[in-house]
Amino acid sequence: MSKRPLILISNDDGVQAQGIRELTAMMCRLGDVIVVAPDGPRSAASCSISPLSTIIVELLEEQEGLKIYQCNGTPTDCVKLALDGLLTKKPNLVVSGINHGDNASVSIHYSGTVGAVLEACMKLVPAIAFSLKTKSQQCDFRPYEEVIMQTASYVLEHGLPQDVLLNVNFPEVEELRGSKVCRIGRGRWMKEMKQVGEGAYQLTGYFQNLEPEAEDTDYWALDHGFAAITPVQLDMTAYNELGELKVKMLKG
Amino acid sequence: MSKRPLILISNDDGVQAQGIRELTAMMCRLGDVIVVAPDGPRSAASCSISPLSTIIVELLEEQEGLKIYQCNGTPTDCVKLALDGLLTKKPNLVVSGINHGDNASVSIHYSGTVGAVLEACMKLVPAIAFSLKTKSQQCDFRPYEEVIMQTASYVLEHGLPQDVLLNVNFPEVEELRGSKVCRIGRGRWMKEMKQVGEGAYQLTGYFQNLEPEAEDTDYWALDHGFAAITPVQLDMTAYNELGELKVKMLKG
Repeated sequence: MSKRPLILISNDDGVQAQGIRELTAMMCRLGDVIVVAPDGPRSAASCSISPLSTIIVELLEEQEGLKIYQCNGTPTDCVKLALDGLLTKKPNLVVSGINHGDNASVSIHYSGTVGAVLEACMKLVPAIAFSLKTKSQQCDFRPYEEVIMQTASYVLEHGLPQDVLLNVNFPEVEELRGSKVCRIGRGRWMKEMKQVGEGAYQLTGYFQNLEPEAEDTDYWALDHGFAAITPVQLDMTAYNELGELKVKMLKG
Repeated sequence: MSKRPLILISNDDGVQAQGIRELTAMMCRLGDVIVVAPDGPRSAASCSISPLSTIIVELLEEQEGLKIYQCNGTPTDCVKLALDGLLTKKPNLVVSGINHGDNASVSIHYSGTVGAVLEACMKLVPAIAFSLKTKSQQCDFRPYEEVIMQTASYVLEHGLPQDVLLNVNFPEVEELRGSKVCRIGRGRWMKEMKQVGEGAYQLTGYFQNLEPEAEDTDYWALDHGFAAITPVQLDMTAYNELGELKVKMLKG
């Protein structure tokens, strides 16, 4: 390997998805690239892993500065496999996506795209998730290339604080109005179960933004034509509640 | 239905696991109970959901104040199905577990037990995950009954702050030394991929506590014989980083 930075790429739409192909082409301009991605769609895989399965990995493509593997696991399995099985040195950056569908607001919890970079973050590797708010499998990713390259270059140069990753979401537009650094907006999915037979259901539903007027959220940025860049932390402790719970729950 | 509180129970070890059976028996003393749990083990399912599958649900058992369903989905699917398909009123409490295996430190991210209650929390229902640090499928849960009953009663009476759930972990002991309200400790899983053939791997590994001396963490409590009660928030925004990122990334 050269002295160029090493960049690991994964996703949850599978190795053949357009989003990861285009992200790979972009990252090859910044460093040596290894792709380890699922062999098919794993949407909404969250941080799930496969402790009960044998994970099978296959090298699909190899050329100067680029290797592409697929495996039968989840996005998080892919990152574990790369860091602990396939790579001989720690990557300088892990990126995930570009997901076909946004991962803003609470969708971050269901997202395999984010699951992959949470895993990298746990292993102390700087990591960025990229997602596009679209329902299409064929998209024009050119409007997002500048922000993707800038964000990846920034993180390669400066790193990220310990236990923090970046979650970047794009609206589907011909031209971005700019980028916003923002918090995760409050929202929820509604009417999610459609009965399709006796005792048979399918997931469906729509997203409800619980604070549509708040201009500092990821969803507001998406709704107004901006890229949403959100720093996300591993630590989910509700620190504000520790003191009161100690008093109330452990009294006496 | 009576005027007793309605309690929804799920887990990730499957509806037949000892942990959910014992938790169900305890919760039946506090209210009417509906169990909606996976039809088999879904360990490490995180918040994954099944958008590409048909979810099949089956009523296994019905008696006064208790209904038990199984389904072929994930823990999060189970909670969505209950809240949006099976229940005619919102439950007063959702509990998950008792998981066979702890969900402290970073394991919270992989946990289906926690995934189930995160879903409840998103839907504004107070929720508690219970897990036991054990490798056994047959355990003596009696040492934990008092804390489980107290915690569930507390939440039924007082509720929880919006977008916050409780994650409760127990050490495997004959007698608890007490309970600690604590933060999530820093840690990580190491050496997670065992090669079992050419291009074939299995998940394995061991947990490394990155701050074993810190007495305010969930892992410290477990290691010292205490129940660990951790308030967990939905919002993963790294608020401390917003200001600096705005300055550094969006400058010029």
